[in-house]
Amino acid sequence: MSESEGQRAADSGPMNGAESLVRTLVDCNVELCLANPGTSEMHFVTALDRVPGMRPVLGLFEGVVTGAADGYGRMAGKPAATLLHLGPGLGNGLANLHNARKAGVPIVNIIGDHATYHQRYDAPLTSDVRAFADTVSHWTHSSREARDVAADAARAVQIARTPPGQIASLILPADTAWNPAQGPARALPVPQAPMAPDHAVASAVRALRQGRAAVLMRGPALFGRGLEAAGRIAAATGARLMADTFMPRIARGAGRVPVERMPYRAAQATQFLTDVETLILVGTQAPVGFFAYPGQPSEFTPPGCRVLTLAHPHEDGVAALEAVAAAFPGAHAVTRSPHAPAPLPADGPLTNIDILGAVSHHLPEEAIVVDESITGSFGLYHLLETTAPFDALLVPGGAIGGGMPLATGAALACPDRKVVTLQADGSGMYTLQSLWTQARERLDVTTVIFANRAYKVLIDELQGVGAGNGGPKALSMFDLGNPDLDWVKLSEGMGVEACRVDTAQGFADAFAAAMRARGPRLIEAVV
Amino acid sequence: MSESEGQRAADSGPMNGAESLVRTLVDCNVELCLANPGTSEMHFVTALDRVPGMRPVLGLFEGVVTGAADGYGRMAGKPAATLLHLGPGLGNGLANLHNARKAGVPIVNIIGDHATYHQRYDAPLTSDVRAFADTVSHWTHSSREARDVAADAARAVQIARTPPGQIASLILPADTAWNPAQGPARALPVPQAPMAPDHAVASAVRALRQGRAAVLMRGPALFGRGLEAAGRIAAATGARLMADTFMPRIARGAGRVPVERMPYRAAQATQFLTDVETLILVGTQAPVGFFAYPGQPSEFTPPGCRVLTLAHPHEDGVAALEAVAAAFPGAHAVTRSPHAPAPLPADGPLTNIDILGAVSHHLPEEAIVVDESITGSFGLYHLLETTAPFDALLVPGGAIGGGMPLATGAALACPDRKVVTLQADGSGMYTLQSLWTQARERLDVTTVIFANRAYKVLIDELQGVGAGNGGPKALSMFDLGNPDLDWVKLSEGMGVEACRVDTAQGFADAFAAAMRARGPRLIEAVV
Repeated sequence: MSESEGQRAADSGPMNGAESLVRTLVDCNVELCLANPGTSEMHFVTALDRVPGMRPVLGLFEGVVTGAADGYGRMAGKPAATLLHLGPGLGNGLANLHNARKAGVPIVNIIGDHATYHQRYDAPLTSDVRAFADTVSHWTHSSREARDVAADAARAVQIARTPPGQIASLILPADTAWNPAQGPARALPVPQAPMAPDHAVASAVRALRQGRAAVLMRGPALFGRGLEAAGRIAAATGARLMADTFMPRIARGAGRVPVERMPYRAAQATQFLTDVETLILVGTQAPVGFFAYPGQPSEFTPPGCRVLTLAHPHEDGVAALEAVAAAFPGAHAVTRSPHAPAPLPADGPLTNIDILGAVSHHLPEEAIVVDESITGSFGLYHLLETTAPFDALLVPGGAIGGGMPLATGAALACPDRKVVTLQADGSGMYTLQSLWTQARERLDVTTVIFANRAYKVLIDELQGVGAGNGGPKALSMFDLGNPDLDWVKLSEGMGVEACRVDTAQGFADAFAAAMRARGPRLIEAVV
Repeated sequence: MSESEGQRAADSGPMNGAESLVRTLVDCNVELCLANPGTSEMHFVTALDRVPGMRPVLGLFEGVVTGAADGYGRMAGKPAATLLHLGPGLGNGLANLHNARKAGVPIVNIIGDHATYHQRYDAPLTSDVRAFADTVSHWTHSSREARDVAADAARAVQIARTPPGQIASLILPADTAWNPAQGPARALPVPQAPMAPDHAVASAVRALRQGRAAVLMRGPALFGRGLEAAGRIAAATGARLMADTFMPRIARGAGRVPVERMPYRAAQATQFLTDVETLILVGTQAPVGFFAYPGQPSEFTPPGCRVLTLAHPHEDGVAALEAVAAAFPGAHAVTRSPHAPAPLPADGPLTNIDILGAVSHHLPEEAIVVDESITGSFGLYHLLETTAPFDALLVPGGAIGGGMPLATGAALACPDRKVVTLQADGSGMYTLQSLWTQARERLDVTTVIFANRAYKVLIDELQGVGAGNGGPKALSMFDLGNPDLDWVKLSEGMGVEACRVDTAQGFADAFAAAMRARGPRLIEAVV
């Protein structure tokens, strides 16, 4: 041990690898640990009490943990840590890590593993943790000994924060957690997104001057300074502003620059783009089908439409938009959505339109709306255009079960903002355990369950893929009735107050009451 | 197309890849498909109505699907198919596939993927499905075109049925499902477990003659003919009979040959084996720690104890035991458990002992008991020794959330037998959606929730791994109160009748009533 190392050890007192890890995470500005721990992670868990600055939040299922880390990362702009238990525990969290990866969200996964010397015995939980992690991670590393853990953690945070946001998975064998370590590692610099090359900016400016251009955006371009710059570009050039169908985050509502949403289906998307001569990409790729459908194109860009990349996802799309906007000086009146919430719908049996209308009417300022309503809001995106300003979070990875965990994480990141989850009933069942964490942490989340008692999207998709109408066996695979789910009981079973409504008036009243109150609640909206 | 191919096509009429797959599975004696499908699997789903002989059962979460396939495989002795939706859908099912892999259970996973030509576009759900599958599979294959699918399926079934039972994962790109195929493939021969080598049998016989031997078993050795042969060996030689701590399946109760259970902790396990001079393995490995604990051995076999393998897991352990038994002819009185169910416990606040006592008292003949009660039955294994004969299923892979799905699958395999799930509350939350499938299929499953409102095992493990007592943050990670889960509401929310009891008498009455009735129900046993 060198003199300086000896000095560090003396300063920090006895410290095991787990404590060096938690201290390093805190020093790297990671303040939240979403956890579902097991035996291998016990030293990490007890270190939490010795290290100020790290808030642990328990999820009763790993999909809640990883999806909440996604929601937190989107709103906080920095990573949360997850704490997961070997390969199977990580396995349960993979779907929402897939979503986070597709959304470009930073997450640091800490995954406990058997002690290094125990791995050869093929004990029950022995698995190839690295193989599980590699499916969704930009970086996977297994610490070799306790003295390495802190430096590995600093590296994990740096990799997670590499633009646009990455999944870093650090595997922590139990003995690297409990053996003595030297102390925390220094935080590494946070990588900055590189500026797009000058030729990309110049090409975009030229295309915009020619007219009939559209800017398709994703990532930080869709809120804050990025969206403002896009608004100036549109005002100056007449370019259309567009977003992916399922964007990670977008600022919407009154006062915000309106952005058109790419349609889901090939026919509509191709039509949508039909007048576009140049499609300028900022932080995204040229639009493609969510799925393949027989006889339909995978690529939505019409023939003859030129595609230009202004900024790749890892580049600074906001700065690129500002550079482009600077090429169009002068006072152009930026278009902004007016504040004109939908009127309250007339009473009658509840429909999806009624739900969106009431949300538009009653949504408070600066709410966060998490949308996994799927068919619940298909074709109804415009209904939230003129409500109070809000941020919307969608599920860009398409893995079902993102909604309620995202809302949980967003509420942890923004405790002073109302969070509203628009949640399909089928998708909600994958990660319903989220409600318990919302109850325990008293999160200000209102969950609206679109209870159509079906995997409605699949009934639509049957036609889309040309698989026929489906006989009784097929249709039973899309039917969530027999028996009906009772979301009021499910919610109350996890400590979240709930009610059921099936009329437009009933929903509007319940939603308005939820907006006035604080804390978690759920509305089962039977449509 | 050759003449014979043309003839086949004419005979079978128009058939797509998906239908050729379903027909092949049925021809290979796969009769049950546990499904959570999405868009990519629509052609498979509609083929179910055109092919008699395949029963689809919907799970509302993939962990239910894979865990039920495990339970079905253990009781039916043949594979079910699962139907899963790309990498994330498979991801949700990995934990229970891990359990099935460790249990040596045959499962055929059918995993939809994007059409082959669509995979390059990095659409939202694009992922490396093969990488997800490889984490738990003995064999992974992605069909290349529709005409290959049937043959690939026949191979998948053969691989799944290769002893002791394997996980075969067939990835089905959407276009291989919807494009024309030629027809089903012929079933391939079911591989038989090879006989253990003669020298292994001879060595075991010699060791048994020397005395102070024990036979440690797993797999088919623990029920039926295998257990009978083991009983004859014990009677003739005085050998002890033992099973792994978490065995996939074991026949227990009155009239069955009693088998000792390996203790969980190193100190007790080493003590348990202290008088054993030769440990003879049948279908398992020498015992090791479930986890590593600082300063404790990973291997439980005491120094000086010789380990002999009579039959590896893929070999015919039953035949090997019978061959050994044949070396000890003569009339030896085989020890069998008496029929002496526990008396009903005295009334008072409910304890784990009261629960096991009432189960022992009221269990009907030939029930199936799925045990994921964890600390709920620690140290109480003996309480079910003398009840009516039953089969027990445990969770050999240690991935939490196996219990209720296992019970679901066992009930699908054995509709005429009562299934009882002994379920810890924490573990139950991972796959609680199982209850909905039990309600829909009207399965005869009684779920007993050991509601101790804690990850009790982790509180115990804190000491075991020497991580200290834990401060308030640590302890909050093990506490399932704040708020309490209301399992009655959770269960009723999914259509399963439920009640809560907190006294010995209350539990005994509720359990007795459940044993007299048919259909799913749940008892929240507050201990």
